[in-house]
Amino acid sequence: MFLFRKVAIIGVGFIGGSLALAMKKNRICREVVGVSKHKRTIILALSRKAIDKGSLSLDIIRGSDLVILSTPVSSIMHLKNEVLRYVDRECIITDVGSTKESVFLALSKVFPNYIGSHPLAGSEKKGIANASSGIFKGSLCLLTLAKGRSTVAFNKVKEMWRRIGARVVTLSPKEHDKKLGFASHLPHAVAYALINSIPKNTLKFAAGGLKDTTRISASDPGMWNDIFMTNRDNLLDAICSFEDSLKRIKSAIKSNDKRILIKILSQSKKKRESLK
Amino acid sequence: MFLFRKVAIIGVGFIGGSLALAMKKNRICREVVGVSKHKRTIILALSRKAIDKGSLSLDIIRGSDLVILSTPVSSIMHLKNEVLRYVDRECIITDVGSTKESVFLALSKVFPNYIGSHPLAGSEKKGIANASSGIFKGSLCLLTLAKGRSTVAFNKVKEMWRRIGARVVTLSPKEHDKKLGFASHLPHAVAYALINSIPKNTLKFAAGGLKDTTRISASDPGMWNDIFMTNRDNLLDAICSFEDSLKRIKSAIKSNDKRILIKILSQSKKKRESLK
Repeated sequence: MFLFRKVAIIGVGFIGGSLALAMKKNRICREVVGVSKHKRTIILALSRKAIDKGSLSLDIIRGSDLVILSTPVSSIMHLKNEVLRYVDRECIITDVGSTKESVFLALSKVFPNYIGSHPLAGSEKKGIANASSGIFKGSLCLLTLAKGRSTVAFNKVKEMWRRIGARVVTLSPKEHDKKLGFASHLPHAVAYALINSIPKNTLKFAAGGLKDTTRISASDPGMWNDIFMTNRDNLLDAICSFEDSLKRIKSAIKSNDKRILIKILSQSKKKRESLK
Repeated sequence: MFLFRKVAIIGVGFIGGSLALAMKKNRICREVVGVSKHKRTIILALSRKAIDKGSLSLDIIRGSDLVILSTPVSSIMHLKNEVLRYVDRECIITDVGSTKESVFLALSKVFPNYIGSHPLAGSEKKGIANASSGIFKGSLCLLTLAKGRSTVAFNKVKEMWRRIGARVVTLSPKEHDKKLGFASHLPHAVAYALINSIPKNTLKFAAGGLKDTTRISASDPGMWNDIFMTNRDNLLDAICSFEDSLKRIKSAIKSNDKRILIKILSQSKKKRESLK
């Protein structure tokens, strides 16, 4: 049975396009329409059968019972008033942004049925060309919910993520941004800084270690600028905590303290091995 | 045609065991013997047909025309005088250590035919159980050579790495440690520090980003203590350079400077994409 009649995805890039493909594959809705700023994205999304109809204009989202905002966080802020002109009061709205506090505040004021989503299925890859229906399978999707807001809408959004294979965890927007500041935004800041600190004439000696550690530094600068700026305080806290952690290693090396260094590295190894 | 008659591998772990398997597969020598401190390693290496004979004692290396020291850097230092008692003057000696200056100084004094090797094919995995003959295929192997030393020995060691699939690059020991301080030892220090800075109750929110960035922090603490300590000055320089790079990102975030932040992230992306 379909969960929705008409789903509109605004921003048919890597996540939006993958979501569209997953919606079609898992028969989540009767119809998926897509909106993009770029005509070539619409053409590609149509040819990949990710969407049934596509447009450069928001007009196409009229009559949707679910609208998914799948653009960078800063665009969501600009989009919200425009979207409001095209949808009914009952329409469920969700987004897929990586930070939640500011978006949540802005959207839940405007849309009574707003539920925040954050699928942890991103990639350094971009665009509909790299999209795949399978990226949500087994991944975590974090939902954020305002107190006292519709549980019908929440349950439908939750069920949608479940059906396309994600494990759903619910958090407050504040808690979400604090946790993700460490679990996702910090590693990105570190990876961006790490690759930039490697002298150019040294890059040819890179093996698997440097490559894996910096893979995510090939991620989109515009998108990550948005994420870093909209989670500034939590990210700065996380960076300070990381700097302290690196200082402990540095100081053990400087003072040739083998006992302390092995103790730190063993703690790290144990913690890393606890990650599934 | 065999390159060597009898090859002895001291330390039949992940790299030593993989090397033994690759030697047999590519018919590098008539016989491979292995030495380990652990009986179970010898038994497993024999059962995997990585070695023809194995022993807990160095006595078995007598008559070898190539001896490969495949133990942590600190053990190489202890082993060298013992090995000297069992081998002829003509025997070619190499190691697979990740730092070269200190090892090179010590070994080239004692062995006239010493050539330093560093295959960039390590892993966070350990032991003969994880060894595989294919890990050198397409990987880089860095050779270090003392001025005026035998080019016959050098050419034979180079040919050996070539035959098992590695691309060989020659460096001075000093240059090797400086480059690897950035390309390998820095990412390890950063990964160890990063995972340790993540609060325990946040680990469950880890997605691909944190996992990739910290994969190598599951590497062996004893081995990496050795590497960090024997490349102390270069690594400390590299860490300082990385700290500066992170400070630039931090300061752009703090001052909400979107233009600078996007510029830095774009430089990083471009540099990462130049890594093959």
